Amino acid sequence: MRYLVKISYNGSQFNGFQYQLEGRTVQGEVEKILGRMHKKPVRIHAAGRTDSGVHAREQFFHFDSDLKIPETKWQHALNSAMPDDIAIHEVQGINSAYHVRYHSHGKIYRYRIYQGAVRDPFEKGLKTYYPYAVSESKMRQAMSHFVGTHDFTSFSSAKSPIENKVRHIYGFELIKTDNGYDFLIIGSGFLYNMVRILVAYVLEVGQGRWEAEKTPAIIAAKDRTLVPKTAPAEGLYLERVFLDEKTRNEALENLKIPR
Amino acid sequence: MRYLVKISYNGSQFNGFQYQLEGRTVQGEVEKILGRMHKKPVRIHAAGRTDSGVHAREQFFHFDSDLKIPETKWQHALNSAMPDDIAIHEVQGINSAYHVRYHSHGKIYRYRIYQGAVRDPFEKGLKTYYPYAVSESKMRQAMSHFVGTHDFTSFSSAKSPIENKVRHIYGFELIKTDNGYDFLIIGSGFLYNMVRILVAYVLEVGQGRWEAEKTPAIIAAKDRTLVPKTAPAEGLYLERVFLDEKTRNEALENLKIPR
Repeated sequence: MRYLVKISYNGSQFNGFQYQLEGRTVQGEVEKILGRMHKKPVRIHAAGRTDSGVHAREQFFHFDSDLKIPETKWQHALNSAMPDDIAIHEVQGINSAYHVRYHSHGKIYRYRIYQGAVRDPFEKGLKTYYPYAVSESKMRQAMSHFVGTHDFTSFSSAKSPIENKVRHIYGFELIKTDNGYDFLIIGSGFLYNMVRILVAYVLEVGQGRWEAEKTPAIIAAKDRTLVPKTAPAEGLYLERVFLDEKTRNEALENLKIPR
Repeated sequence: MRYLVKISYNGSQFNGFQYQLEGRTVQGEVEKILGRMHKKPVRIHAAGRTDSGVHAREQFFHFDSDLKIPETKWQHALNSAMPDDIAIHEVQGINSAYHVRYHSHGKIYRYRIYQGAVRDPFEKGLKTYYPYAVSESKMRQAMSHFVGTHDFTSFSSAKSPIENKVRHIYGFELIKTDNGYDFLIIGSGFLYNMVRILVAYVLEVGQGRWEAEKTPAIIAAKDRTLVPKTAPAEGLYLERVFLDEKTRNEALENLKIPR
């Protein structure tokens, strides 16, 4: 039987999602627990990966099991074995031909910053400290240029082996919070480090280091060296993963973003 | 010159406030930084201690320095050297006869719990997970019995060497939060583990394991074995330390608590 699992995790104490020989990873922790339950190795397959220190409020994986555990009991069985930085939100039986990686119809990432005269020890690992004054209107102006279909070469890691760097951004929203800002970005897919580079750039526009209206020219240049900064991992959250178009379109509608 | 310093810290990664030969402590980290600046050992003296995993939103210490740093530069100098789980909020020069430990006119502790079907990885270390249904009115009823002057032998660690276990509680308030409850307790002073034992007891009353109206009898019994539980450290915050009566009375007034 194949099961689809919805999880969330706090990335602070993980060296990313993907299994590594050394270092604690989300996949490593989950596979260790499944292996113990099945008395044999069990491999999980995720909708996507997150880097070291990056969080997920919604992430999916699937795995195969021959254990005779009723579907309704799986969530509790897994949660009671999980460490306190991984939570299991849903477990459902699915078709054994289903592969979660091929069902992504888009994702939402959130990036959180906080401001203030001094660092807040209680935001450690949860939001990025950004004490500099930023202009909301300049940031919004820069952000608007990324919405639509663009080649994001200038805004993704040069190390990425992926050749096609065209992605579609449905929306890029700025939300004022009690102590800073959240950036919400909804896209068909994202390149390596893309969200963190976009946010680093937008914050610099907000600070006045770049002119917002030069954004289209930087996109058009397709040159990664123009935008050298990458915002830290700790502020980044994989917020939602859309496994079908209907869910994605509903989310876009709720956020009042054109499809 | 003697300086009085106001700090906050996230206790998750500390083995408590007080210096220990092994293990990371708040005092150890601060003294390491001061020692480096002064090129000799510098001892700090705090208003109080907190246990392993316990947080402080407001804590004070003082230290002596012969460095020629202007008072206004100290905060920045210290903050730039501090780890990201300690923040320096204020540094002021004080009379060299002042000792912060003898100027405590009361404290506020906060205890935070969250509820929900599953653990929240983003509350890890910040709030205690308490998934059981609790009655607000039963908890409030139990809490009201602790306000006033009482012998707290039944609600403090039996290990404590302090003989006089009489303390005055100005107020014990229950606050509904977005995902649970905060307990706010204001007192002249607190015995070892007292807040954590009180909260564990009140939660059990809320769950229906104890009758709220039996509380005065448990206080009167002066028997620590009656209330065996201690709530975990991670939900506990030293919220305020009052260094003079005026500040304390203002706080009580703002919270509408009789002096």
